[in-house]
Amino acid sequence: MPRKPQDENSILAKIADRSRSSRKLSGTRSASIAIGDDAALFRPALGCETILTCDWFLEGTHFLRHIHPPDAIGWKCLARAISDIAAMGGEPRCFLLSLALPETHTGRWLDLFLGGLRRASHKFHCLLAGGDTTRQRKILISVTVVGEVRTGRAAMRSGARPGDILFVSGRLGEAELGLRLLRRGKVASKNRLSLTRKHFYPEPRLALGQWMLKKGIATAMMDLSDGLSTDLPRLCAASSVGATVELDKIPQVHIPQRLLKDGLRPLQLALNGGDDYELLFSVPPAKARLLPDRFRGVALSAIGQITRARGLFLIDKRGIAVDLAARGWDPFAKRQKW
Amino acid sequence: MPRKPQDENSILAKIADRSRSSRKLSGTRSASIAIGDDAALFRPALGCETILTCDWFLEGTHFLRHIHPPDAIGWKCLARAISDIAAMGGEPRCFLLSLALPETHTGRWLDLFLGGLRRASHKFHCLLAGGDTTRQRKILISVTVVGEVRTGRAAMRSGARPGDILFVSGRLGEAELGLRLLRRGKVASKNRLSLTRKHFYPEPRLALGQWMLKKGIATAMMDLSDGLSTDLPRLCAASSVGATVELDKIPQVHIPQRLLKDGLRPLQLALNGGDDYELLFSVPPAKARLLPDRFRGVALSAIGQITRARGLFLIDKRGIAVDLAARGWDPFAKRQKW
Repeated sequence: MPRKPQDENSILAKIADRSRSSRKLSGTRSASIAIGDDAALFRPALGCETILTCDWFLEGTHFLRHIHPPDAIGWKCLARAISDIAAMGGEPRCFLLSLALPETHTGRWLDLFLGGLRRASHKFHCLLAGGDTTRQRKILISVTVVGEVRTGRAAMRSGARPGDILFVSGRLGEAELGLRLLRRGKVASKNRLSLTRKHFYPEPRLALGQWMLKKGIATAMMDLSDGLSTDLPRLCAASSVGATVELDKIPQVHIPQRLLKDGLRPLQLALNGGDDYELLFSVPPAKARLLPDRFRGVALSAIGQITRARGLFLIDKRGIAVDLAARGWDPFAKRQKW
Repeated sequence: MPRKPQDENSILAKIADRSRSSRKLSGTRSASIAIGDDAALFRPALGCETILTCDWFLEGTHFLRHIHPPDAIGWKCLARAISDIAAMGGEPRCFLLSLALPETHTGRWLDLFLGGLRRASHKFHCLLAGGDTTRQRKILISVTVVGEVRTGRAAMRSGARPGDILFVSGRLGEAELGLRLLRRGKVASKNRLSLTRKHFYPEPRLALGQWMLKKGIATAMMDLSDGLSTDLPRLCAASSVGATVELDKIPQVHIPQRLLKDGLRPLQLALNGGDDYELLFSVPPAKARLLPDRFRGVALSAIGQITRARGLFLIDKRGIAVDLAARGWDPFAKRQKW
């Protein structure tokens, strides 16, 4: 049943109201963010730089309204933007939500969406500071996240040096596996959560990023949003270096036996799958031993090395090197996400 | 002729490249903004609060691709977002651009769009700090602007007091006139610029807003983006007051004689037209005499008074009061912009 259409003022009031409890939950910090005027006011912490990042999350490109629960859309639109703050070793502070909706989605759908958004906001201590809403046929979301990091200390992509060891957190390809299964309509409901969790509810590696910064271990760091084969070249280009990656060291998604028959290849998903939001970072050999095997339950794996030569190579068990081709997510490439 | 499609990296490179010269032009400030990593870094000025605001600018809702020149789209998407900074008496510092485009628009269209964007960026000293691009069938833009204001000094909507005098800058309805003419296809090319300038190339009232703040004259301030009849109730609600507006004091758009026959009514455009980006502010009577009639060529007009009673009334020449109905722009109302 279509909902009674609402006007812009009442939608804004609903969004502000839903965010109120999350602002209370994060305690004293909320005092420094004011919402509801022409613009939001944010009081920066002394000795810190502000980190700014924005991310599209668009129906048809990044999610489908008949497949993705509104709660997951709310969670993920914020979590993925926060991942860029994690990649710099920063702390999220607040976010702006640009939301365009069909009139039919201003009732229950919006409530559920705001529920997921609030859970992420609470979990990652990132408060709604303001936004803009309008009406559209498709659901369009753009999230801007504001974070902080001690001045001059942010982890960049550009510091990797020849000889550094390349690490990734977690297992790669898990989000892509969930996406492929959803696309094929293959997910039975009882398996749904474990195989699609990372696609629906990604977790930015905030604690790891902040720990790396505190310890001063990483020379370069970024998050994996478009897939290792597309993101590693970006880190290397920013650092003016190359890299070799050992195939059998890449921590790959576990694929249930019955699905291996369907042509799903763990290595392909790990190399080219997007949306994992794991961290990729380089560490000088002398400091690599300071890294634990796991950080708060998340594996840290050495997968290769930074090289002076600018090429990117995959090395198999026999020691044979092949070019690493960027086959990750590119919205302007022919391959469509859906 | 359709352009050769580009990949995301090359589009990002083009945007960063086009912004480079504008960053140089604004001198020393550019040192405090870093672009091109996972996120942008912004160094806040000591003793200042950060102002955050975001604005949609969407094909079909806010502009039409066959009517609006790409240069004007680039200018306006930034100028209208900066207007929220002006409304708080702040100074713009940098912005993030979320841009979704069809593949066909990544060549010449994008160049012209970035040209308009750069001119606005230069004129308003607001630097591109980062963004996100993706592919879409429609052109979608969301701009986040970051500004600054001395801590605790920002002008809010909530400070208006009974007895304060209401002022507006400029003439109201000029942008709406341009829009109506474009909709009707009525604009001959030689008249195009003067009648549509404010619709295509709005100018946020930054200098006026900052001057008001410095002088400590206004008790409440906001920008007129959705029309006086929709925005004044917002200022009054935030301040828990009402207002009376004298009809014949509203500075109305001048409509050429030949167009008056077409049913265009200056007062209706002035009351309900959006997109003017003039400032609306309240001033205690004792301070009203400190206001000049014009500020840097822009008229400042007293249009009414703040009242303790919560209603909003229009008063005609005979002194008869009628309810002021909100008939400005509401994206969720039945009336469509186009």
